[in-house]
Amino acid sequence: MKDFVRKIVREMPGYVPGEQPQAGKFIKLNTNECPYPPSEAIWEAARAAISVLNRYPDPMAGRFRRAAGEVLGVAPEWIMAGNGSDDLLTILTRTFVGENETLRLPYPSYILYKSLAQIQGAKSEEVLFDENWQLTADFAQNTPGLKLVYLPNPNSPSGTVISREEIIRLASKLACPLVVDEAYADFAPSNCVDLVEKHPKIIVSRTFSKSYALAGVRFGFLVAHPNFVSEFVKVKDSYNCDALSIAVATAATQDRRWFQETRAKILKTRAFMEAELRKLGFQVTPSEANFVWCTREDRPVKPIYETLKAKNIFVRYMVYDRWSPKDGLRISVGTDAEIAVLLEEMKNVL
Amino acid sequence: MKDFVRKIVREMPGYVPGEQPQAGKFIKLNTNECPYPPSEAIWEAARAAISVLNRYPDPMAGRFRRAAGEVLGVAPEWIMAGNGSDDLLTILTRTFVGENETLRLPYPSYILYKSLAQIQGAKSEEVLFDENWQLTADFAQNTPGLKLVYLPNPNSPSGTVISREEIIRLASKLACPLVVDEAYADFAPSNCVDLVEKHPKIIVSRTFSKSYALAGVRFGFLVAHPNFVSEFVKVKDSYNCDALSIAVATAATQDRRWFQETRAKILKTRAFMEAELRKLGFQVTPSEANFVWCTREDRPVKPIYETLKAKNIFVRYMVYDRWSPKDGLRISVGTDAEIAVLLEEMKNVL
Repeated sequence: MKDFVRKIVREMPGYVPGEQPQAGKFIKLNTNECPYPPSEAIWEAARAAISVLNRYPDPMAGRFRRAAGEVLGVAPEWIMAGNGSDDLLTILTRTFVGENETLRLPYPSYILYKSLAQIQGAKSEEVLFDENWQLTADFAQNTPGLKLVYLPNPNSPSGTVISREEIIRLASKLACPLVVDEAYADFAPSNCVDLVEKHPKIIVSRTFSKSYALAGVRFGFLVAHPNFVSEFVKVKDSYNCDALSIAVATAATQDRRWFQETRAKILKTRAFMEAELRKLGFQVTPSEANFVWCTREDRPVKPIYETLKAKNIFVRYMVYDRWSPKDGLRISVGTDAEIAVLLEEMKNVL
Repeated sequence: MKDFVRKIVREMPGYVPGEQPQAGKFIKLNTNECPYPPSEAIWEAARAAISVLNRYPDPMAGRFRRAAGEVLGVAPEWIMAGNGSDDLLTILTRTFVGENETLRLPYPSYILYKSLAQIQGAKSEEVLFDENWQLTADFAQNTPGLKLVYLPNPNSPSGTVISREEIIRLASKLACPLVVDEAYADFAPSNCVDLVEKHPKIIVSRTFSKSYALAGVRFGFLVAHPNFVSEFVKVKDSYNCDALSIAVATAATQDRRWFQETRAKILKTRAFMEAELRKLGFQVTPSEANFVWCTREDRPVKPIYETLKAKNIFVRYMVYDRWSPKDGLRISVGTDAEIAVLLEEMKNVL
């Protein structure tokens, strides 16, 4: 039976998302969700949407485009919504990269880009960051068959950023589109949305899973030149976003007060986590995201992950064979209470 | 800029879904939605889901799989959920069909299959139905490069069905998987779900957009051998279904009374529509779906569609160049009140 499946699919391992325990009491710091509930405004928006669920949603999520455009200072035609930013990354890959062509990503970073290349029958080129998590000259090199470059910014697992100036230089050098995956940009001091208009090779993607506390609704969007958007529309499913997520994301976008307050809480806890984890002997990379990357030179970190997991505290244990140190813990910023429990349990382990 | 886009994407027209007017008063009979609101049970399910939207959903929609498995008499591992059945058709195409390979579909039928082939850089083979909307021997032919066959059953726009016996024969002859797209099967007297276990080349797909009145949530599922499901999981987005749609679809699945009552209403109105439209001089193909296919020999139908549209009554005008008659109106089964208005307006036109 497996013989019916395309060889490239059959032989790929498949991307494995972070553990999502579905029941029981636990502290979940492994997939960079927001620990706070989303804007209260979503309740009324959802109620209105539920009353017309027998109808198809707006294929282009017009209400959301207009609301997001207003917040970002971008015309609606430059925005396209997706079923989570994973949907958008899939659409981008399918639009630009064919079989045996190549996409590029930095290493270590979001492993999903590589899986997207595999499903497409394409090649992926992983270019190592330098020791300060900055790009090397290789990353801007135009190689034969290179059709798309992914740059998560801030990066995961490091939480580090590449400057806007560097991104402009990169886009100018590259002979293909550059996707700046800004899943975590709301936690950083700057972002690249305003660069898209002047540098149409730059495409920015965003998600509501992190800074809007809406991982459950699967909603994201991209900002790109309308000449690109019209091509993405051909590749996306006609109704890729459901009516509830469009309504909820629109309401959340418009609640700027919730956004600013929640962001401030996350940044405050992040600073506290960094300081406390350093006191416990971790090397902590300064983070511009809603997680921190912790490594150790004095002892293996896997047992720490395992002991925490046994206590129903989930952090993300990550291994990067071609990096040094080759493994670490990526810990999401939780509530202060959750982080207090985490630190307490860590003290018992260490 | 368009030069960055894959040639096959750049040159394809893109699938155009039915018109979705977003505001104003209208009678909408063009995209086969259910005219009745969904099960009341979805409200409580949605409320519960909204309270944890900051968390990622279950990647495999376990609760839904178990609920649907119980209703269908299928083990949960044979079920996979999707973001509407379009998502599932995309996943199926990407799993089985590579660039320059071929998928087959009947003609006239759901044009989306052809768009899916185009995005994939694959070829599509459209095999004409016979004059009774039945399959010819050509449809079972194994041709070089044929990797997947789509059979919508009941078919759109005709509303006709291929028998279970014929489908078993077809699957036995074909050297590739056969997807029976059962978007409309809940309105037919029989379906193919129970065939999957004995004939693993058969894969059945379903949607909640039609018979569950949930077009707005984008939810569908497929039934396939677990050896296939494990491959589809690699191709799908990790979190392809959102928490709200999983909760709502699960609750709707469990409300069998709503389902039976709504189905009975649709079938009753369908019989009435068929009879009345015939009285108005249409040729109406006997339908096993929630729409009827109406053609005329005595006059063009496009002006009828246009006149109705000007009165805010939307039906679907469809053109099939290689079929006779080459155009017709596909009219969704609405409420009795909606159909009364439709028939009244038609009398004015005719």
